[in-house]
Formats: sequence, C-alpha cells, structure tokens
Amino acid sequence: MTETTRSPTEILHRRSPIGRLMDRKGPPSPHEGQEAAGILERARESVDPELRRAVESLPGSMRRIALYHFGWEHADGTPAAGNAGKAIRPALVLTAVRALGGQHTTAVRAAAAVELIHNFTLLHDDVMDRDTTRRHRPTAWTVFGDTDAILAGDALQALAQRLLAEDPHPASSAAAARLASCVVELCAGQHADTAMEKRGPDEVTLDECLAMAEAKTGALLGCACALGALYAGADEEDVDALDAFGREAGLAFQLIDDVIGIWGDPSRTGKPAGADLIARKKSLPVVAALASGTPAAGELAELYGAPYEEGELERTVLAVERAGGRDWAQGQAVDRMSRAMQELSRAVPDPEAAGGLLALAEFVTRRTD
Amino acid sequence: MTETTRSPTEILHRRSPIGRLMDRKGPPSPHEGQEAAGILERARESVDPELRRAVESLPGSMRRIALYHFGWEHADGTPAAGNAGKAIRPALVLTAVRALGGQHTTAVRAAAAVELIHNFTLLHDDVMDRDTTRRHRPTAWTVFGDTDAILAGDALQALAQRLLAEDPHPASSAAAARLASCVVELCAGQHADTAMEKRGPDEVTLDECLAMAEAKTGALLGCACALGALYAGADEEDVDALDAFGREAGLAFQLIDDVIGIWGDPSRTGKPAGADLIARKKSLPVVAALASGTPAAGELAELYGAPYEEGELERTVLAVERAGGRDWAQGQAVDRMSRAMQELSRAVPDPEAAGGLLALAEFVTRRTD
Repeated sequence: MTETTRSPTEILHRRSPIGRLMDRKGPPSPHEGQEAAGILERARESVDPELRRAVESLPGSMRRIALYHFGWEHADGTPAAGNAGKAIRPALVLTAVRALGGQHTTAVRAAAAVELIHNFTLLHDDVMDRDTTRRHRPTAWTVFGDTDAILAGDALQALAQRLLAEDPHPASSAAAARLASCVVELCAGQHADTAMEKRGPDEVTLDECLAMAEAKTGALLGCACALGALYAGADEEDVDALDAFGREAGLAFQLIDDVIGIWGDPSRTGKPAGADLIARKKSLPVVAALASGTPAAGELAELYGAPYEEGELERTVLAVERAGGRDWAQGQAVDRMSRAMQELSRAVPDPEAAGGLLALAEFVTRRTD
Repeated sequence: MTETTRSPTEILHRRSPIGRLMDRKGPPSPHEGQEAAGILERARESVDPELRRAVESLPGSMRRIALYHFGWEHADGTPAAGNAGKAIRPALVLTAVRALGGQHTTAVRAAAAVELIHNFTLLHDDVMDRDTTRRHRPTAWTVFGDTDAILAGDALQALAQRLLAEDPHPASSAAAARLASCVVELCAGQHADTAMEKRGPDEVTLDECLAMAEAKTGALLGCACALGALYAGADEEDVDALDAFGREAGLAFQLIDDVIGIWGDPSRTGKPAGADLIARKKSLPVVAALASGTPAAGELAELYGAPYEEGELERTVLAVERAGGRDWAQGQAVDRMSRAMQELSRAVPDPEAAGGLLALAEFVTRRTD
C-alpha cells in the first residue's frame, strides 16, 4: 500500500483475466496460463503421495471406492492412470503459505486434507443430485451403489480430519476447526441448492442464490487460502482476508461458469448448449434475469414455469439476455474479482508475492475440475 | 494385580451381569441398575448443553434436521421434550476419565463429540438401511428426505471434529485422530453389514460376522473409553486397554442383543418376535448355526435360502437352537465380557475405581438406544 503502482485496481487491470474474459478480446497470455499450470502441476505432485497414503490406509471396501473415485483404479480394481482433478484447492493452500512467507512443504498435509474434503462432497453431491458422470467417468454411486458412495464420502471426511489431527504443525488445530466449519457451510450450500431447484422460478431471490453459490463454491476455496495463511503463521486479519479472497474469486468463477453454461461454445465447455436452461436450473444469470422486473423477465418466468419443450432454447437464451442476466453476471464477476484482489492486496501487498494466487484466481475463473 | 481378590475372574463373578443374563436366575440387583442409571443421567446432564450448543450453531436448514433427530423439536419445528437416547457413549467417556484418575469435567466436549459421531452414523445408517423408526419416531430421512438426512449427518461429523479441534485440552488432537480412525472403522462395518445381507446364507463366515459386529458396534464404544483414558492422561497401553474393554463389552452386547432378537420376550424387546429371522438377517447366532456343520444347519440354510413363508418361524427358531446358535452366542458373550473385564482390570486394577465402567458394561449388555 506504499506505492501507487500497487493499488488493487492496477493489479486487477494488469493481471486479472476477468476483463479479458468479459470483452473476449483474446485468450490469456501463454505466460499467465503456464504459471497457473505449473503451480497446479507442482501441487498435484506434492499432494498426491500424501493423498494416496491416506486413501491406501482405508480398509479394503472403502479403499476400492476411493481409488476408483480418484481415478487411480478402474471399477474392476485394475490400476488406472489417475484423474483426480486439477488440484486447485491444494494449490491454493500451498500458494497461500508461500505468499505469506511460509514454507509450503509444511502444509502438504493440510493441502491433502482440503482435497479430501472436496472429494467427500463430490461423492455425496453426486448421490444426491443423481449425477452420472464425473471427470469423464461414471460416478462412484453408479458403479458401487448409493450406500458405498455415501460411506466412502464419510470416510474421506474422517481421513481429512485425521491428517490434521496427526499433523504436529502448530496451526493444525486451528486449521481443523476452520475446515470443519467449512464442511458445515458446504452442507448448508448443497441443501440450499437442492431446495432451490424444487421451488418455482418466482420463489428464489438473487440474494439467496448468491449466498448459496458462496456456501457451495466459495467457502472451500476461501478455506483453502485461509489454511495456507494459518500455516504461514499469519495473524487473524490476514487469515480472514485470504479467506475472503478465495471466496470472492470462487463466486467470480461461479458467475462466469454460469455465463459459459448459457452462452459458451459447447465444443469448448464439453456440455451440450443451454443444458442448464433446458434443465430449468436456477443459475445466477437466470435468477438475476427473473428478478429484473423487465418484460423479458415475465417471458422467462413463463418459460421456466413449465418443462422445456423442443425448440424453446433460443427464445430462453434471448429472454435471459434481454432481461439483463448476462450483463449482470459479467458485472458481478468483475466486481467479485475486484473485491478478491482488494482482499489479497490487503494481506499480501507485494504483487510479486501475490503473483501465484493471482494466477490461480485467474485460472479458476476459466475452468474447474 | 497385587491382590488375588482383584483377579479379573473374581471381578467377573462378583459384578458381571453376563452369568446372570445367561443362566437367567433373575434380573440385576436394583443397586447395580441404579448405579448405571445414575451415571447415564449425569452424563446426559453434562453433555446435553454442549451438544445442544453445537447443534444450535448449525445454519438453519441443518439445525432443523438435527434438532428433530435429537428429539428436541417436532417435525414442524415446535419444541419437543427431547429423546436423544441413553448417552451410553458420553457416559463411557466421562466414566473412563474418572476411572483413570482424571477430572471428568475436562472431557465434556470429547463426550459430546463421540455422541455427535454416533448420531451422524444413525442418520446415515437409517438412510442406507431404509429404517423408518428410530427412538419411537419416524427417522429423519422419512421426514426431510434422503438429501437432508445425509447432509445433516455430514454436518454432525464436522461438528464433532470442530469440538475437539477447538478444545484446548492437551489430549484433544490425539482424541480427534482416534475418533476419525473410528469413523473409518464404523463406515467399513456398515459396508460389511449391508454387503453381507446381500449374500447367500452359505457365503458368510462367522469370522466376517464377528469382525463386522466389532467394527459396527464395538469400535465406537471402545473409542469412547479410549478418549476418556486419553483425557485422563493415561499412557498408550492403558488407552489401548480401555479401547479393548469397550470393544469387547460392545461385542458382548451385540451377541446378547442378537439372542434377545430371537428368543427374547417381544413385550420387553419392543420388536415383534423373530423379526430378524423373518427378515432373514444374518445375525451372529444364525451365522454360528449355519457354520455348525450339524443337520439343523442344513435345514436352516434351506429356510434362509428362500423368503420367509407364514408359519415358518417356530421351525427356524428351533433350527438355530438345535444347530447350537444360541449356546454359541451365549458362550461368546460370556467370553467377550470376560475379556472386557481382563482389559479393564489391567488398566484399572482397583475395583472401586473400575466400578462405574463395570456398571455401564453391565447396562450395555442389557439394552441400548
């Protein structure tokens, strides 16, 4: 904060991909993409042995399901190449430790614990949402049944807490408490998500929808950053700032993901065009559009009031757009990313030290696992 | 171990209810029953405020389900008298602390954590087993749906770990690690139980069945005792002895519960006569009977190979009995209780100090929540 060249706004303009994503003048520079890719790769390399050791410690029945879920085994128990996702959360933990002047090697267990919690929620969410595909493979419950997928998720939550309980690092208890509180928030977020989907299109407020996205997506990204700060020995204010950074970046991610889900190129997103609209999902741009009080909002409410009918997609997309759903979501994403940068620059004023976290925030707003 | 009057066998003969239960010469003395009842009541009083505070800290959606599950609220959210079970596990924690010379007031959070874990497993097991009644009320999933019952269970596991992570007691990290390991074992036990029920009557071994009962029932009772020992500052050997005491007593309980499930008086058990046999459940006496190699085993295997038909109950009960299932289970229960006493007398040689744990072991082999 001592130099004007380090203002949050400037950091945002120099580094944030949001403006670029929004005006779509081009992809991120190869250098920036490479930086995040390198961080993620190194995080995966650091965390995988710890993660694998934890999973291997499970009794046979639970181990099999977890090894399958992480992509380390096929359904028949034969070894697989591994496809455990992009390690965004462990990378946030390890990068936050370094940003705050700590040794990232001390936080490998904490990083693995966060990744175990993430995977516990994936296993359970897939059961509840009846999702059949995860990381291009059949979800665990479709292969092993609901009971075993629920139990494997329960066991992963326990493993995460055991890793922290057995970690002699002085921050491990504070990290365990914070991670447990985060799990409660994740549960509340998943509850809100499933409850909202059952309600009518005019019965969901934008504030509810934002709160749900923060709990479901922002909370664990924030917690990952906060754990990194704790392991660096940061004071409470900086820990909270890092949490807020991760949360806001997570919300920016969710907003952009929702925008891409409607207006993105299906060949790049890997999802059929307009899948969320066809499923009548109350994504953030849709709820913003419904709440806009415009004539297009009325049209959208009517469409959402009945199941999707063949040929309605273009009209639905247009209604969300004309009701301002797209502009609102893009504006919110920029706003959230700006807040994320402000929080980060408060705790880590040196842009060089903050560089890794910025690169990850950038990455997270472009894709997810 | 210095006086012969304190041998495990003598403790067993003087205090254990098993012999009495087995030869059925009469109910336990009023004094012994009162001792356990008093311990349980005091444990409930100590732990409830902590438990209630933890549950009240949940966000609204999760809180509602947890308050219902614990019997503190009706399904419509109005206050209820409370019916959170018999507090056996918290009582074991608090009584173990005292038995090993510690202050039981220091372990109230640990006792609440164990009770939260127990209730997390109940919420999830009821979803998986499609059980519709728990503590004389409709189970949470029948009232709130599978998703919310699963999420509330997840949140209770997290709350348990948060209580320990926030507990400044020097034993709290070791307790958290032990409790997390126990959760993994409980999951494996539940998996084994559901998997065994899907297999044919000749495909389940007695060892498997005993291992399942130990994981599903013994592990948490053992863990409760071990946590008490940890909070008393006991050494590793005594902690492990207390764990073994709880496990063996838990297995004795399960064996007797299974015997009562077949030969017990329905007016006293609250379950219809022979419900386990009618459901073709592979309880311990049944599996022992099937493995006996007797002609009655063949008859039982034939009965169990097909769904129950009206009027078969008496023949099934007789087959289990003639194949030795009842004698085996009663003998095993005595054996397990004897081992429990040995473990206890190893860690707590003074019978006066061990009195509370003995009274609880006694109680646990007579009923459960």
